[in-house]
Amino acid sequence: VQIDLNADLGEGFGIWRLGDDRALLDVVTSANIACGFHAGDPTIMRTTCEMAIERGVAIGAQVGYRDLAGFGRRAIAIAPDDLAADVLYQLGALDAFARAAGDRIRYLKPHGALYHAAASDQAIARAVVRAAREFSPTLPVLGLPASALLTQCAAAGLRGVPEAFADRAYTAAGGLVARDVPGAIVHEPDAVARRSLELVVSGHIRAQDGTSVAVRAESLCLHGDTPGAVELARLVRRTLEMSGIEITSFA
Amino acid sequence: VQIDLNADLGEGFGIWRLGDDRALLDVVTSANIACGFHAGDPTIMRTTCEMAIERGVAIGAQVGYRDLAGFGRRAIAIAPDDLAADVLYQLGALDAFARAAGDRIRYLKPHGALYHAAASDQAIARAVVRAAREFSPTLPVLGLPASALLTQCAAAGLRGVPEAFADRAYTAAGGLVARDVPGAIVHEPDAVARRSLELVVSGHIRAQDGTSVAVRAESLCLHGDTPGAVELARLVRRTLEMSGIEITSFA
Amino acid sequence: VQIDLNADLGEGFGIWRLGDDRALLDVVTSANIACGFHAGDPTIMRTTCEMAIERGVAIGAQVGYRDLAGFGRRAIAIAPDDLAADVLYQLGALDAFARAAGDRIRYLKPHGALYHAAASDQAIARAVVRAAREFSPTLPVLGLPASALLTQCAAAGLRGVPEAFADRAYTAAGGLVARDVPGAIVHEPDAVARRSLELVVSGHIRAQDGTSVAVRAESLCLHGDTPGAVELARLVRRTLEMSGIEITSFA
Amino acid sequence: VQIDLNADLGEGFGIWRLGDDRALLDVVTSANIACGFHAGDPTIMRTTCEMAIERGVAIGAQVGYRDLAGFGRRAIAIAPDDLAADVLYQLGALDAFARAAGDRIRYLKPHGALYHAAASDQAIARAVVRAAREFSPTLPVLGLPASALLTQCAAAGLRGVPEAFADRAYTAAGGLVARDVPGAIVHEPDAVARRSLELVVSGHIRAQDGTSVAVRAESLCLHGDTPGAVELARLVRRTLEMSGIEITSFA
Repeated sequence: VQIDLNADLGEGFGIWRLGDDRALLDVVTSANIACGFHAGDPTIMRTTCEMAIERGVAIGAQVGYRDLAGFGRRAIAIAPDDLAADVLYQLGALDAFARAAGDRIRYLKPHGALYHAAASDQAIARAVVRAAREFSPTLPVLGLPASALLTQCAAAGLRGVPEAFADRAYTAAGGLVARDVPGAIVHEPDAVARRSLELVVSGHIRAQDGTSVAVRAESLCLHGDTPGAVELARLVRRTLEMSGIEITSFA
Repeated sequence: VQIDLNADLGEGFGIWRLGDDRALLDVVTSANIACGFHAGDPTIMRTTCEMAIERGVAIGAQVGYRDLAGFGRRAIAIAPDDLAADVLYQLGALDAFARAAGDRIRYLKPHGALYHAAASDQAIARAVVRAAREFSPTLPVLGLPASALLTQCAAAGLRGVPEAFADRAYTAAGGLVARDVPGAIVHEPDAVARRSLELVVSGHIRAQDGTSVAVRAESLCLHGDTPGAVELARLVRRTLEMSGIEITSFA
Repeated sequence: VQIDLNADLGEGFGIWRLGDDRALLDVVTSANIACGFHAGDPTIMRTTCEMAIERGVAIGAQVGYRDLAGFGRRAIAIAPDDLAADVLYQLGALDAFARAAGDRIRYLKPHGALYHAAASDQAIARAVVRAAREFSPTLPVLGLPASALLTQCAAAGLRGVPEAFADRAYTAAGGLVARDVPGAIVHEPDAVARRSLELVVSGHIRAQDGTSVAVRAESLCLHGDTPGAVELARLVRRTLEMSGIEITSFA
Repeated sequence: VQIDLNADLGEGFGIWRLGDDRALLDVVTSANIACGFHAGDPTIMRTTCEMAIERGVAIGAQVGYRDLAGFGRRAIAIAPDDLAADVLYQLGALDAFARAAGDRIRYLKPHGALYHAAASDQAIARAVVRAAREFSPTLPVLGLPASALLTQCAAAGLRGVPEAFADRAYTAAGGLVARDVPGAIVHEPDAVARRSLELVVSGHIRAQDGTSVAVRAESLCLHGDTPGAVELARLVRRTLEMSGIEITSFA
């Protein structure tokens, strides 16, 4: 049994930093690196690519809406053609740093409001997938299982890679419980580690109503910008490893 | 005898436009396409790449300082490492559109204040050349003859391509007369056309003091954003063609 | 009988320009001046304020979403508190130029996607009105009749000023026909002039279904960035004046 | 004897934060609040103004170059007229938040590269002072003693307020030792506290060569974004207070 661990990285800008990139890069196998639109400036992108490659971590393009002030967390009603161009721009920019550091982009993952929009809106998902395919017809795309994004990947002949969240509650239908619902976030570290193991080993997770629901995931998403995040990420990795699960990039 | 004609293109942003790209693309053989830092948004970059490729015009990355408000015309005291990253970012971004449209970036030309800084400051020139070489060890760089930029190209094993300006007055030493000196700009169309021919055929130009000075150029830079610019560009091309000169990309 | 004429002005940025501000300022009585978020840089804001004051045109703050790339025409799902802060920021910035030129901001009008959002969404309208009131408890707000924006103005004790569009088709209910419906835009200059007169004199307009509908308006919105826009604006003003209508600011 | 303590505040942007504003606001009497060009977004500006006013701290406009990516630390060769407009824009924007929170801007202090440029370049200093005076003919301007900025204040009839840095080494001529010279920064907390007291009580400071040099200062600048900064700021204040010095705003 094997699994990939991914996290958002390189999400500073200029003088500002977010999260402990160095520590997280020692835990994950896939680095979702910000590409300058919601976070990430060229110098940070270069450094993060170099650090990822040094550790054998796969570089993914974490593309977002053009919105530094909102950190890409606000939906923007951008025309699909313009969105596809924005995504392709970010892919090309990050790839230049990945190549300068000796590798290349291994996958794409949308960030924030674009992640959510691409999960539920087929036109937005199609625009993201169009850009991915224009960049490379073999570029995997990371997203929610059964999302519009993975549907469009399938339609376009791109590999869609489903991910799961061990620190989020799931509905009986296999979706994420909305963030504002009580209990939507699992805070207790041991519970998150146990859920990670359950997800990877059984392909199922205990849903909020107590039933067991199938969640197919090739990657687990870890978070890096909350207090205790790095320790939690380490605990999840250690728990999986101690159970004999191979932690390896899906790419 | 042959010569390349280059011009700045794709220098709009969002709703705003600058110059008549479509008309200029029918005249030039090399398109310096803005990459989003001083001008150019992803949709404009895509469209301009597509139009250039349709006409067989070579795509060049017109990289600039991050300064939309100043159109890249204001020198910014950026650290060389950060500048190299900014340039590499722009190269990667534009290349994604060039490739999506069926070609790739054929050369780099710095824009505005960066053009001037890279002509006179070795550290800045070195940063630009570093980015060019990181992007591709065979990427030509367009610049002023005898500039720091071409010096650094030579030192780095990159091809430096010298360009000339038929509408600018030259000093007896072969440099450009500063813009604020009376007579620095040649406005009369026939004079510009005649000087273009002189430059290409003889490799010399009449300097401001009346002497003839050698100006080695593999490309002539035409302008597109002034009144009558397109007509002047057409006149220059026609004049060269009627004299049997082959108008072809240096790339 | 009297009416105000308003138009969007100062909508360039850096090197880029949009519309013929100088010509429009000779026609309108209220200038909706862009405040830097969707268009307008500080130098343009200063110049436009000065030109408006020279001609006795009232200065209005044309506030928008922070989106130069989209010209403020894309809805952004910004939190109301952040939106109120963005609007207040723009009000203060423009007012500094209005005061430096000898006057002050006389009203607020939202731009583009924010105009539409504030017309239909009470929470967004409330955020805009909150900022207006924080800036000045006597600041008038220009908007669609019967919109959420004017409703929130009334609730907050601010003066809401309804405007009409002589070049837009109206529904029998007094609303604007959506732009993508055939016939939504009236292009014929004489028709626009005639409709302007009808609106001002009778307070009614011929709706798309042929019925007459009441449209209460204290201002007519003219456009400046389309071909023939300035000529049309002049025609409307001349038509109104020749009918004895006084063209004067509502402020 | 009395002195003002000032520090840079509100220097986050969007999701990013810098320094511990809340703690510093309990120490200083003047808050240099970023205005959105080098740092500071509208929501942060509002919050910082409110926190300052709650504590009776004077609000100053910390104006900077338009350069989020460089945090305003890179000199930009902007035309003086454009700079004056950029500064006036920032003043107006911050003042709107100061007024909404019940006060108004009490002074201006340039940030980063603009601080240094305005200290040594008369044309740049004149542009900053022009904006200050356009905003209010009684607005004090905080800067280096004997700087171009204070010279231009005097010429324009504005109050120039000189400040000193207890953690910086001084030359025998009363200037700051350049940052890259060994010993330019005083790190030892007790030394900084002792130098603060010396500066305030005697109006002199021990220069790097051991001589005593006069440094006239109405304010001491404290830093907030380095490790131990808040503790150091508290120590300086306590040391001054225990010696009977009144800590009070110059405004």
